[in-house]
Amino acid sequence: MTLEAGAGKPLAKYAAWRRAGDFIFLSGIIPVNPQTALIVRGYDDIPAGAQQLLGRTGEFSTDIKEGPILAQSWYVLESIRTTIESAGGQMSDVIKLVQYFRNLDHFPHYSRVRKLFYPGTPPVSTVVQVSEMLPSPDVLIEVEATAWLPQ
Amino acid sequence: MTLEAGAGKPLAKYAAWRRAGDFIFLSGIIPVNPQTALIVRGYDDIPAGAQQLLGRTGEFSTDIKEGPILAQSWYVLESIRTTIESAGGQMSDVIKLVQYFRNLDHFPHYSRVRKLFYPGTPPVSTVVQVSEMLPSPDVLIEVEATAWLPQ
Amino acid sequence: MTLEAGAGKPLAKYAAWRRAGDFIFLSGIIPVNPQTALIVRGYDDIPAGAQQLLGRTGEFSTDIKEGPILAQSWYVLESIRTTIESAGGQMSDVIKLVQYFRNLDHFPHYSRVRKLFYPGTPPVSTVVQVSEMLPSPDVLIEVEATAWLPQ
Amino acid sequence: MTLEAGAGKPLAKYAAWRRAGDFIFLSGIIPVNPQTALIVRGYDDIPAGAQQLLGRTGEFSTDIKEGPILAQSWYVLESIRTTIESAGGQMSDVIKLVQYFRNLDHFPHYSRVRKLFYPGTPPVSTVVQVSEMLPSPDVLIEVEATAWLPQ
Amino acid sequence: MTLEAGAGKPLAKYAAWRRAGDFIFLSGIIPVNPQTALIVRGYDDIPAGAQQLLGRTGEFSTDIKEGPILAQSWYVLESIRTTIESAGGQMSDVIKLVQYFRNLDHFPHYSRVRKLFYPGTPPVSTVVQVSEMLPSPDVLIEVEATAWLPQ
Amino acid sequence: MTLEAGAGKPLAKYAAWRRAGDFIFLSGIIPVNPQTALIVRGYDDIPAGAQQLLGRTGEFSTDIKEGPILAQSWYVLESIRTTIESAGGQMSDVIKLVQYFRNLDHFPHYSRVRKLFYPGTPPVSTVVQVSEMLPSPDVLIEVEATAWLPQ
Repeated sequence: MTLEAGAGKPLAKYAAWRRAGDFIFLSGIIPVNPQTALIVRGYDDIPAGAQQLLGRTGEFSTDIKEGPILAQSWYVLESIRTTIESAGGQMSDVIKLVQYFRNLDHFPHYSRVRKLFYPGTPPVSTVVQVSEMLPSPDVLIEVEATAWLPQ
Repeated sequence: MTLEAGAGKPLAKYAAWRRAGDFIFLSGIIPVNPQTALIVRGYDDIPAGAQQLLGRTGEFSTDIKEGPILAQSWYVLESIRTTIESAGGQMSDVIKLVQYFRNLDHFPHYSRVRKLFYPGTPPVSTVVQVSEMLPSPDVLIEVEATAWLPQ
Repeated sequence: MTLEAGAGKPLAKYAAWRRAGDFIFLSGIIPVNPQTALIVRGYDDIPAGAQQLLGRTGEFSTDIKEGPILAQSWYVLESIRTTIESAGGQMSDVIKLVQYFRNLDHFPHYSRVRKLFYPGTPPVSTVVQVSEMLPSPDVLIEVEATAWLPQ
Repeated sequence: MTLEAGAGKPLAKYAAWRRAGDFIFLSGIIPVNPQTALIVRGYDDIPAGAQQLLGRTGEFSTDIKEGPILAQSWYVLESIRTTIESAGGQMSDVIKLVQYFRNLDHFPHYSRVRKLFYPGTPPVSTVVQVSEMLPSPDVLIEVEATAWLPQ
Repeated sequence: MTLEAGAGKPLAKYAAWRRAGDFIFLSGIIPVNPQTALIVRGYDDIPAGAQQLLGRTGEFSTDIKEGPILAQSWYVLESIRTTIESAGGQMSDVIKLVQYFRNLDHFPHYSRVRKLFYPGTPPVSTVVQVSEMLPSPDVLIEVEATAWLPQ
Repeated sequence: MTLEAGAGKPLAKYAAWRRAGDFIFLSGIIPVNPQTALIVRGYDDIPAGAQQLLGRTGEFSTDIKEGPILAQSWYVLESIRTTIESAGGQMSDVIKLVQYFRNLDHFPHYSRVRKLFYPGTPPVSTVVQVSEMLPSPDVLIEVEATAWLPQ
């Protein structure tokens, strides 16, 4: 399961990540492919392997409801994984997440996806519902990650 | 004044705290007892000593207005204290707080409670109003704490 | 271009900044002059040099629309610069920003101002829209900064 | 910088312009290409030269916010220019504009674009915010122009 | 098909029309009979000939939906015709219309009616949706007309 | 009764008025003093003579309700008078008005004020309610005027 090229690269004039001592700070990551500038809106915008992993049912009514938050959750966490790997670390080095939702009813879906990325010790976590994120109201989740990766 | 058993333990699959070098990162803490899964809704949900400390008046109209935010503020900060102590530190090691409110009119009440926990040097502080927090709209405040506790 | 006296000093019982090891944590900064307790509401509340830098047009209808967010963006970032300098560092040491907006349509304006403060490597950045900030709905932006400044 | 073919031609059964004595009256112009029936939604729907002129930054989050109103403003004014030229005049003959916006916060952006079309004497101008325009809520601006072009 | 007496006369202290050089300017016309002060609310408020012309079906569900906008459109355009004739001209002299709607979903209905009044060259046209018109929210359309009628 | 200095001058890069043949076109006029950039918000923002003319009662509850629309109506019409006089004409040369309101319940108040400016033949008039005007929601009325003033 590979993220399509471009994910995890900054969309504006900000750094995707910066090292400060033993820490790696990541910018808040949104479900937007920076190369195509497309927002991930559902299952069709993520790789087939990821769709299967997330439990795409093939039933229209179910997939159209769950697809957006599941696909966005996967895309954002996969982007974090890609980013920390490009910094020389791995997902388990990401020890803190701040998660912004547009609708906290989505939390259980996100929570299930997050467990796939954290089979071992979970990170510390903060969760709040905000009124909007960049670049548009279609964005349902943004995650800010902090990693500890001693040099 | 002791916090009832259970406070400060994680409600879901996330860590209550993680050490990274000389830092202790805490998850965002909400006013929910993780053992009983009950939200702190007013004075009656916190110990008598805490009620007295917060200035419970015994007048119904006043207590029903101030009680929820005062009791939640106390519960959340007490949970932070319990958590940092379980990590081997104390409240004064918690040097940074990010505070999420549902209604910033509650800030003065919270601010008075926070001073009880910080008789000395105050922490750095960020305050914003968000639209909702977990697990329900009854939650009026969430606090994310960072401590510096050199090994 | 110098910030008027008082900017960057705390408005309440919290620390403007705290050092923790090699890090400097700043409190969330709002566009309020802590000495006069006045909210920056437009171009007239910032120095003439800053007005020019931000492109004040002199046309009423345009300036009244753009002035508030441009002046607040400048004031907040200038306060961060003043604060980190008082801690012995400089703007380029501020490597992480969390930015809270009341209206994300203001983001392009803020983004242009931020580039003036970061001619070199940009910081990592998180951006969300919240429903309100202290002390009143007139506040359009709050920025929480973290600096890395090895002793 | 040439407008793609079709701009300025009427979309329905109305005249793009009519001469009455020394005056040329134009129909209200919306940012829709009458040949393709496509609404101009952002930078990608206008020529590269126009994008550059309007200051496309290349940063996704900024361009997606500013692009729609800047591109629509340019398209509508360019259509007016094309129309008046087809009537034998030039932009400076257009002496009156009534401008309808969906959101007056867009006014500063439009105002900057209009100055590009009026380097000399500006037109008389009326500006109001209406609730919707044809053909859909994606239309952010409509401009009705009147020219004085003595025979 | 004659308009009932009174249509096209001003409801308040304003002129129904004024000549200025070769132009005739009409006040914005609303679907209200100035003699009876009644708003045209449906087919029953216009002459039988007009009902037939507009395609009254006799089916309740259809007529109650289409009737209000069709009858108001007809009444307003017929008032314009009556007014310009009282000034010595005819409909084809009315070369510009500004049309205000309460709901642009009504536009196709209005457009069909307008074609009945303009079998030849159509006028220039501006269309916007506003939030209300005089004298009450029952008014679905207002049209401001300008005629060119050289002396 | 003299308008304070500055009224009727353009607030942005547009012409206050332009002559085209025998016509004078005025920009839409809003109740803002272009010199002080202050919106007229009530009786206190207009000259004492005008307050008396409009019937200021001295009763707080009444004046605070009627004052804003009466003062704005007077200010806008007085600005039109000042403007047309600066072009060499007088109020009776202004033969057409398009009036935009934020709330049509204000119309009767405006209508009474307008009669003071038009003791003789009234102008043609169009009235609609829009959702907002420049520079802010405090503006209750905007009037676009056209005059006929043969050279």
